[in-house]
Amino acid sequence: MSVEKEMKNIMEYETVALDDDNDALVILDQTKLPGAAELISLHTGKEIWDAIYLLKVRGAPAIGVAAAFGLYLLAKGIRTDDYEVFYQELCRHKEYLNSARPTAVNLSWALGRMEQVCLKHKELPVSEIKVKLKEEAVLLKEEDIRVCRAIGEYGLTLVKPGDGILTHCNAGQLATCRYGTATAPIYLGQERGYDFRVYADETRPLLQGARLTAYELYASGVDVTLICDNMSATVMRNGWVNAVFVGCDRVAANGDTANKIGTSVVATVAARYHVPVYICAPTSTIDMSTPTGADIVIEQRPAHEVTDMWYEKPMAPAGVKVFNPAFDVTDHDLIAGIVTEYGIARAPYTESLQEIFCRKQKGPFS
Amino acid sequence: MSVEKEMKNIMEYETVALDDDNDALVILDQTKLPGAAELISLHTGKEIWDAIYLLKVRGAPAIGVAAAFGLYLLAKGIRTDDYEVFYQELCRHKEYLNSARPTAVNLSWALGRMEQVCLKHKELPVSEIKVKLKEEAVLLKEEDIRVCRAIGEYGLTLVKPGDGILTHCNAGQLATCRYGTATAPIYLGQERGYDFRVYADETRPLLQGARLTAYELYASGVDVTLICDNMSATVMRNGWVNAVFVGCDRVAANGDTANKIGTSVVATVAARYHVPVYICAPTSTIDMSTPTGADIVIEQRPAHEVTDMWYEKPMAPAGVKVFNPAFDVTDHDLIAGIVTEYGIARAPYTESLQEIFCRKQKGPFS
Repeated sequence: MSVEKEMKNIMEYETVALDDDNDALVILDQTKLPGAAELISLHTGKEIWDAIYLLKVRGAPAIGVAAAFGLYLLAKGIRTDDYEVFYQELCRHKEYLNSARPTAVNLSWALGRMEQVCLKHKELPVSEIKVKLKEEAVLLKEEDIRVCRAIGEYGLTLVKPGDGILTHCNAGQLATCRYGTATAPIYLGQERGYDFRVYADETRPLLQGARLTAYELYASGVDVTLICDNMSATVMRNGWVNAVFVGCDRVAANGDTANKIGTSVVATVAARYHVPVYICAPTSTIDMSTPTGADIVIEQRPAHEVTDMWYEKPMAPAGVKVFNPAFDVTDHDLIAGIVTEYGIARAPYTESLQEIFCRKQKGPFS
Repeated sequence: MSVEKEMKNIMEYETVALDDDNDALVILDQTKLPGAAELISLHTGKEIWDAIYLLKVRGAPAIGVAAAFGLYLLAKGIRTDDYEVFYQELCRHKEYLNSARPTAVNLSWALGRMEQVCLKHKELPVSEIKVKLKEEAVLLKEEDIRVCRAIGEYGLTLVKPGDGILTHCNAGQLATCRYGTATAPIYLGQERGYDFRVYADETRPLLQGARLTAYELYASGVDVTLICDNMSATVMRNGWVNAVFVGCDRVAANGDTANKIGTSVVATVAARYHVPVYICAPTSTIDMSTPTGADIVIEQRPAHEVTDMWYEKPMAPAGVKVFNPAFDVTDHDLIAGIVTEYGIARAPYTESLQEIFCRKQKGPFS
């Protein structure tokens, strides 16, 4: 089987799946990409914890769903009919999984939803509570896919067949259960013969664009070209890019957006070449309690990611100072639209994001 | 001896030097940086050719001087008193060295100057022509150092003590005989206690910023911080950068400037944060016969530089398309000044660059 065919088969598989008959959580091991595509089956709490901690599964939505499936499997293995014993044991497993990446909000949020299901159904026999836990985990996954798909549909209205699209980092299928966020319009367009040309920034220092985005788009048959982060001006100057789609880590109430380091560089360059920049943001990432980007704390990461990670030998003088922020803030004036599962917010964002949340309170998105 | 001390000692040495007593061209082997700093002595034509071809010596000015010293050493070894035999043999060596990097203008230009010296002094005994050849090679090196120093002096008038300076790629001492071009104001400032804070872009894909610029500045005791190319907006947003200094490969008559890929990204970001961008350009790189940046052909380089060069394993899916331009063009409206050995050109550049060349025709720079 050719490499490309093998990759394509892998991408037809979902990032995170439950194999209930075999008591297994099945994930695509992302630490092996792009060199090898391996599906691995996880059974024990330790195996699931390691997979999250070691980034075998990554991307906030994918981590949340993996943890929910994992907690269900661990609950299934609890041998008791006594609710209190069962609940205490469930909480112990929950705390353990939650400790894998304590700062990932989706992880604790998804595990919290699982615990609530247990508490809500305490009158039921333990065997039926286990069924409810499975249903909740499956629902979490379905919700993730529906949110991504809705973002894709709205995003698709912003481009036309044949367009060039640039993306940064990986807000792709590999970060979610399906479609991704920034890649959702690309995949939906692909299904409908839009023939997009996509430019993937490699995204230093961790290379998520080269290792993951270029991988998943190429495997899916999308016309993708890998570039270094410092080549964005050239592709835009050449007129090859009609829109930029990126994901986000947090959107402030005024539309300022924190995302992977370099996003604001892309947005600044795009402004010069009159290319619109769209942030693909599930409403779960919009934080109305954060007034502006200045209120977002930026995580600093270790120097070795820049100087010698991935490399055969150190690529900078030993001991040199390194500044390595994981994210940057893109000012709202550089953003043409924020694409959510409830529609597209436009400037002024202080008003349009409120409107998005009003729609959310009224009921589920269509 | 500590690593830092060892590096410092190395940087006190010049990039290219003649060891006439031992019939040797001595260079700092740049392919070993930053892992090891090794001075190597080259004696034969083959050794010198290999050093240029394999980028052990790199940077247009440094290559030109290395070739001139090399040709002198090869001429010195010609055992004849007959001018015609000597000249033919010299030309053979010249063509051989010139073939090491056929597209490097400085290489053929420096070798051509050496040939002219031979032709001009054909009436002298061969032994005295050899002395003239040595003098010409030494002069070429001295000129390079004087040009860089003059650029440094003019550049230094554009900043003040304590300023933050960002640079991209390596237009440093390692690319010239001393001082560099973009780094010349930094080194002169260092000598005078200016205490600059310098930010060095790593400069993907070939990492000249990490491997060479961060190395030479760190070794020289400059306060340098290494960043990825996509972090420029963050350091400028934080108010840490007062000026950008970069080198150039070619300046067009209207001021548009071709330089290492990513320079125009830095310049676009700098414009947003009101940081002035200065191009450090020996007049030899200003090409008045090229009207605008649109007339500059951009070299495309192979995909493997992006996907797997330097890396322990491939960092992108096998077979994915890669766009890898070596340079980009920075529009003149993004450039605050072009710093030459004859002074600083300001917009409108069509006039100010003419004025620079008028000064050059009038005589040597002070």
